Amino acid sequence: MTATTRPAAAAPAATPAATPAANPAANPADLRPQPLPRSRFPRFQTIATRWMDNDLYGHVNNVVHYSFFDTAVNRYLIEAGALDIHDGAVIGLVVQSQCHYFASLAFPQMVHAGLRVAQRGRSSVHYELGLFGDDAELAAAVGRFVHVYVDRASRRPVALPERLLAALAPLENAA
Amino acid sequence: MTATTRPAAAAPAATPAATPAANPAANPADLRPQPLPRSRFPRFQTIATRWMDNDLYGHVNNVVHYSFFDTAVNRYLIEAGALDIHDGAVIGLVVQSQCHYFASLAFPQMVHAGLRVAQRGRSSVHYELGLFGDDAELAAAVGRFVHVYVDRASRRPVALPERLLAALAPLENAA
Amino acid sequence: MTATTRPAAAAPAATPAATPAANPAANPADLRPQPLPRSRFPRFQTIATRWMDNDLYGHVNNVVHYSFFDTAVNRYLIEAGALDIHDGAVIGLVVQSQCHYFASLAFPQMVHAGLRVAQRGRSSVHYELGLFGDDAELAAAVGRFVHVYVDRASRRPVALPERLLAALAPLENAA
Amino acid sequence: MTATTRPAAAAPAATPAATPAANPAANPADLRPQPLPRSRFPRFQTIATRWMDNDLYGHVNNVVHYSFFDTAVNRYLIEAGALDIHDGAVIGLVVQSQCHYFASLAFPQMVHAGLRVAQRGRSSVHYELGLFGDDAELAAAVGRFVHVYVDRASRRPVALPERLLAALAPLENAA
Repeated sequence: MTATTRPAAAAPAATPAATPAANPAANPADLRPQPLPRSRFPRFQTIATRWMDNDLYGHVNNVVHYSFFDTAVNRYLIEAGALDIHDGAVIGLVVQSQCHYFASLAFPQMVHAGLRVAQRGRSSVHYELGLFGDDAELAAAVGRFVHVYVDRASRRPVALPERLLAALAPLENAA
Repeated sequence: MTATTRPAAAAPAATPAATPAANPAANPADLRPQPLPRSRFPRFQTIATRWMDNDLYGHVNNVVHYSFFDTAVNRYLIEAGALDIHDGAVIGLVVQSQCHYFASLAFPQMVHAGLRVAQRGRSSVHYELGLFGDDAELAAAVGRFVHVYVDRASRRPVALPERLLAALAPLENAA
Repeated sequence: MTATTRPAAAAPAATPAATPAANPAANPADLRPQPLPRSRFPRFQTIATRWMDNDLYGHVNNVVHYSFFDTAVNRYLIEAGALDIHDGAVIGLVVQSQCHYFASLAFPQMVHAGLRVAQRGRSSVHYELGLFGDDAELAAAVGRFVHVYVDRASRRPVALPERLLAALAPLENAA
Repeated sequence: MTATTRPAAAAPAATPAATPAANPAANPADLRPQPLPRSRFPRFQTIATRWMDNDLYGHVNNVVHYSFFDTAVNRYLIEAGALDIHDGAVIGLVVQSQCHYFASLAFPQMVHAGLRVAQRGRSSVHYELGLFGDDAELAAAVGRFVHVYVDRASRRPVALPERLLAALAPLENAA
C-alpha cells in the first residue's frame, strides 16, 4: 500500500495552494489535503469491499469511494430513523462531492467509513468522510459531499427536519 | 429535469465563497459553480447510461458521474495512443476528484462527456469534465479530477510522457 | 482474446450434458453452449464499456454482462414505447438469469447486444441475448433472462400488455 | 418483501420443466427452482448492501447478486489462503453463471451469502450460492457459477491446485 502513498506525498505539488479546490476541509489550518486520523470522526460505518471494486490496477477504483460515502451517510440516517428512502416526504440530493486519495484500498479489505458533519445550512448538510482500510489509523481517502434536502414532489429545498437534526447532532463534534 | 435544477440554484447558498473547496474551476471568474456550455470543451466522448445507473430516486446516482469522468478520459487517451492500460510503464493515479451537480441525468439518456485540461504540472494533469444529457446545451454536472502519472512498478511520479503531452494538446484550449 | 476462449473450449467438460442447466438455448440442437453469430439476433443495442468494467484480470467482469442484458432490453422497450419505468402500471421483474462466457470483453470496446425473444408466457418473456465486442461475428457471451410482468402496486403477475406484445414481435423471428 | 415473492411463486409457470436450464441445482429432486434454507450451506460470507445497489424499483438490482457471488467465493478463497489474486500462477475464470430470484433484497440490509460446492471437475468448480437478507431463513436468491482454473499466462485449464482443494473441502458436504 505504501506504493500508492507516494502520489499522495506528491499531491501537494500536484495541487498547489493556488487550487484551494483541493482543500478537503473548511478551516485554513489544512489548506493542503492530508490523511485524517480516526479520532476526527465521531461515528463509523463498516462496508465490505467487493471483488469488482478492484480495477485493472489492483486497487479499489476511485469511483467506488463515492459509493462508500453515499452508503455510510444513508445507512447512518436510516438507522437513526431520520431517513425513509421509500416514503419520506423529504429527500437529500447531492449537489457537490469531492474526494482526496492518499493510499489504496483493495478487496478483500473491510472499509470503515468515518462520518462527521462539517457544516450545516438551513436546507443543506456538508458531510466529511474518511475511509479507513481494516485497522489503518490514517484515512486512505477523505471526502466531502453536500446534501440539499428537498421536498420529494416539488424538489424545492426545505428546512432540515427535526428528526434529521437530532440524527446529525452526534456527528457535529468539533474536529 | 428542471426539478433537480432547483437544488443547484440553491447550491451557492449551500456552498458559500468561504468554501472555495466547492469551486469546480480554477479561475476566480467562476468562484460559484455553474453549469458550463458545450463550447467550453474541445473534445467529447459519448457514453450510454445503463439501467442500474438510476437509483431509487429515478436519476443517475451521483457516484456514476465519476465513472463517466474516468471512462471519458481513459478512452480518449487510449484512442489517442497515449495510454496502454495493460502494459504501459506509466499509469495515471487519481489523487483527487470532485463534481458539482446541476440537473439530473437518467437512463436511457446518452451522456456526452466534454473534456478539457484545466492545468498541467510536471507529473500531473487537472482535467475538467462536463456531462451533457442527450442534446442539452448546458452541463448537468461539471467535475474535475487530477491524475498523477507514476511509474507502474515504483509508483513514483514521473514527468508526463511525450505521447501523453501530444494527446493532451488538443484539450488545452483557453476556456 | 483467444486466451480466454480456451476456458470456453473447456466449458463442455466443465458443464456435462448432465447439467442441462448449462444450456443457454432451449432447442436440443445446442445442448452444449456455444457462441452464437450476429445473425441469430433481430435487434441490437450498442453500449460503451467503462473503465471500471475491467476487473483485476483486465477484462470486463462477469457481473457487468448482466448489466448489459438489463440495459439492452429495457432501452429497447423504452424506445419502442412499451415501458414507462417511472409511471407504468406494469413492471417487469427478473425471476431468473444466466450467462455463458466464451471470450473476453474489455474496456474500451463497444459492446453490441443482440436481442431475441426465446419464449413467451402469459405474463413472462424469456429473452436471449448475445454480447459482441466491436466487430466480432461471434458472441463473447450469451445470456438469458426471464421477465415476469407484474402490477406495480400489487406485484401480482399480469397478462403481457398489448404495447409490450407489439414491441416484442420484431424480436420473435425463428432463430 | 412478500410482494416480490409472488413472481417467484409464478416462476415454475414461467420456467416449465421443458426448460431445465431454469434448474439452479443439479439433482432431479429440485427440478423446479425453490428458495433454499441456510442449512444447505456450510459456510457464509457477510456483505453490506450499498445505497446504489437499489434500483429504480427500490430493491437490489438483479445484476448486483452476481457481485455478491463473486465476492463471497473470492473472499472465502483468499481467507483460506487458496487464492492470490495479485500474483497467483493460477486464476479462476467464470465460464457460466445463473441466478433465480425469489424475494427482494434491499439497502440497507446485510446480505449473508451461503457457499457450497455442487460439483468438481479436474479444472472446474461449480459453486452454489444462496443470498439471505438479514435474518431470513430462506434464500432471497439462489445462484450457481462455474470457475475454470487456468494458468494466468497461457490461460490454459490446469488441475485444481492442492491448496484450492483443501479450501474447497469444507464446502463439499452433502446437501
